[in-house]
Amino acid sequence: MSKKLDKSAGWITFDPELKIVDCTVRDGGLINAHKFEDGFFKKIYDTCVAGGIDYMEVGYKADRKLFTGDDNGPWKFSSEEDIRREVGENDTKLKLCAMADAGRTDYHNDILPRDESVLDLIRVATYIHQLPAALEIVKDAKDKGYEVALNLMAVSTVPDYELDNGLDVVSHCSEVDFLYVVDSFGSLYYEQVDDLITRYKGTGKTLGIHAHNNQQLAYANTIHAAINGVKLLDTTMMGMGRGAGNCATELMVGFLKNPKFDLRPILKFVQETMHPMSQKLDWGYSIPYMITGHYNEHPRSAIALRASDRKDDYLGFFDEIASP
Amino acid sequence: MSKKLDKSAGWITFDPELKIVDCTVRDGGLINAHKFEDGFFKKIYDTCVAGGIDYMEVGYKADRKLFTGDDNGPWKFSSEEDIRREVGENDTKLKLCAMADAGRTDYHNDILPRDESVLDLIRVATYIHQLPAALEIVKDAKDKGYEVALNLMAVSTVPDYELDNGLDVVSHCSEVDFLYVVDSFGSLYYEQVDDLITRYKGTGKTLGIHAHNNQQLAYANTIHAAINGVKLLDTTMMGMGRGAGNCATELMVGFLKNPKFDLRPILKFVQETMHPMSQKLDWGYSIPYMITGHYNEHPRSAIALRASDRKDDYLGFFDEIASP
Repeated sequence: MSKKLDKSAGWITFDPELKIVDCTVRDGGLINAHKFEDGFFKKIYDTCVAGGIDYMEVGYKADRKLFTGDDNGPWKFSSEEDIRREVGENDTKLKLCAMADAGRTDYHNDILPRDESVLDLIRVATYIHQLPAALEIVKDAKDKGYEVALNLMAVSTVPDYELDNGLDVVSHCSEVDFLYVVDSFGSLYYEQVDDLITRYKGTGKTLGIHAHNNQQLAYANTIHAAINGVKLLDTTMMGMGRGAGNCATELMVGFLKNPKFDLRPILKFVQETMHPMSQKLDWGYSIPYMITGHYNEHPRSAIALRASDRKDDYLGFFDEIASP
Repeated sequence: MSKKLDKSAGWITFDPELKIVDCTVRDGGLINAHKFEDGFFKKIYDTCVAGGIDYMEVGYKADRKLFTGDDNGPWKFSSEEDIRREVGENDTKLKLCAMADAGRTDYHNDILPRDESVLDLIRVATYIHQLPAALEIVKDAKDKGYEVALNLMAVSTVPDYELDNGLDVVSHCSEVDFLYVVDSFGSLYYEQVDDLITRYKGTGKTLGIHAHNNQQLAYANTIHAAINGVKLLDTTMMGMGRGAGNCATELMVGFLKNPKFDLRPILKFVQETMHPMSQKLDWGYSIPYMITGHYNEHPRSAIALRASDRKDDYLGFFDEIASP
């Protein structure tokens, strides 16, 4: 091997601190309002256990006063009862997490003390302007005994001085265990990811990355982050996720060298369950998502286009987005 | 902007030396034996001109003693007559190139003196063991007045000492203008691309990159190469190319900041011509190509699978490839 590769011989062995967080149910559920077929959750759970995945995100902890159970499947709320029905006491090495959106979760009531829950990690998602509200959820979750992650969304639209202020606040919040670089709009390429990693490392926190595939860069940016010290790697089965989707779990498991990971059960699940779903639901890279990525915009306009009868009108969509 | 990004302010302006080589007809033609619909060639040519593309590859210069015109469309042979029928004298800024495979081209007869041809660049494709034969074509093409590129295929399977010997030979061959990093199997990630770039730079040649998308890394590896000094960037419309395909022209044009590039005509062509083709022909990332990429194998077994009635039998294919 070359000198360059010799330096990273840790790769040819492996970094045991690298963890995969499978977010299929949570992020993929944004496509189908978390209304998965019966049996889906148990299958993906069993697959994560068999595949050596570190964390599985079971869904959101959404406030039932804001969202109805008619409009949304159970993993919008991820009640302890629903989780336990699927996983029992979760007597496995797989850790479980759920996402709490700042301003959209009744965390006092819906996040139980950890010793009453099978959840291990609470991930708090926030825009920069909600940071104080998010940190209240963070502190509550830490007090209750959980590992806690902070996912700062849409960072590609945050001015530098504001981001630096936010990171300073986070660095002084001892309750944050993990801080996530989140490319909500799939607009970042690796030099920008590098820059964010460097800044985020200044907080002293263990870092995670959550990438979107608008420009076919979700996997590339995730391995780039892993090689540069980020430890929690968000993935989804077959890249299922809102819009252009995410870094595919099967790509990441194929890349990482830790022998605890096993690609075979993941491919089996992808073939038998995800591929048929992908024929019915639209996710993954397509040119409208590339365009919103280029323009650093939320993908909602592209999602609307893809759901319309002009889903492949790339030119018309480009003209709309490119108009000042 | 951050310090990191300030250092590369050249990006926010642009590097005028970065050139896009659109290979759709040549590499995409491997899917349909270069039998494109009437009018296709002229449309893509007009699109390349309008989009500011630097080079368009018109096809192969294959030996008619080895390949028949019944089995292959005209761009397998790229006769001067056929090219001129489409482009006339090519009175545009777009340069034209053709590929000559070592051992499969009658270059003495089929590559005309440049002053009798509308071609500007001859790209000689070779495996490492054919290098002496390839360099004869290189010298012949240079003598005839062309720019000449050498594409060293399947480098991911070449032992280091052999590669270093080959690069030494190339460095002493003044007739090679451009040397290509070619990821034939789509098996490389960016650290490996970096390593190859560093070695290839040792030849003193201007470098190019030709990436495949087996692991959704074609675009990522290409921009990584561009940022690290590689100047010729191979792309194809909608990523059309053998197996997992290539770096998409539309992604690259969206990324590069040189105002001579224009995404709009490219999106129009992709929407009107490439997207309908993509519904009939199978190319682009899928899990079988990921698997051959992981195992650093030629994609032919995955191509055969995708053409069979078990195209999505990921697990069965994995078990075959993973068997020693």
